[in-house]
Amino acid sequence: MNPLNTQSINLLHKVSLLNEQWSPRVVAEMNDYQFKVVRIQGEFIWHCHAETDETFLVLDGNLRIDFRDGHVLLGTGELYVVAKGVEHKPYAEHEVKLLLIEPRGVLNTGHEGGERTAQNDVWI
Amino acid sequence: MNPLNTQSINLLHKVSLLNEQWSPRVVAEMNDYQFKVVRIQGEFIWHCHAETDETFLVLDGNLRIDFRDGHVLLGTGELYVVAKGVEHKPYAEHEVKLLLIEPRGVLNTGHEGGERTAQNDVWI
Repeated sequence: MNPLNTQSINLLHKVSLLNEQWSPRVVAEMNDYQFKVVRIQGEFIWHCHAETDETFLVLDGNLRIDFRDGHVLLGTGELYVVAKGVEHKPYAEHEVKLLLIEPRGVLNTGHEGGERTAQNDVWI
Repeated sequence: MNPLNTQSINLLHKVSLLNEQWSPRVVAEMNDYQFKVVRIQGEFIWHCHAETDETFLVLDGNLRIDFRDGHVLLGTGELYVVAKGVEHKPYAEHEVKLLLIEPRGVLNTGHEGGERTAQNDVWI
């Protein structure tokens, strides 16, 4: 068994260590799931995750998640689970700080790929 | 497919709806995992979850999690994942408001049972 970890994770402190926007960094794991912090501003690309739900928790700021037929608004301390297979596009007018929760191995762009795809499984 | 959900979940608002301490209530699901809010104060019983890690995120207040050979302290906005099989005992001098994340079906007392076991899978 690994040595006992007795260090809690301060999420906003972890966010403060992020060098750039749109680059999720892993801060903890629970079974085969990862907790990732990210700073985003502006709009992302349309994508979906065919295999899994994806959780967004706003640590600071405001986030809009657009769907093909609607949207959801999240403020600080608010959570939303994007259902598996639902196309979505995150948007933030001003920078928003997020906690993402999803299975290990999920790419930020789903199966879309392209230049907005962030390096995966990088810890901070 | 279910109708699109366009309602975010305000975690502290959900906590404010809790009638009593030590009774986790489900606020959202991600795949086969559940997000639960709970208010606790005082000390719980020693227990562990043999099958799964368990995540604690402090929404408001201070939490100590005791282990047989140490402890971890969490303040507001701090997260900790109790590893599978590790005996632990949550403690809060003053009331603390928590978000718990764990697979559907996990009991608050693990396999210990007894009078502190809360009804499971109740939504708020």
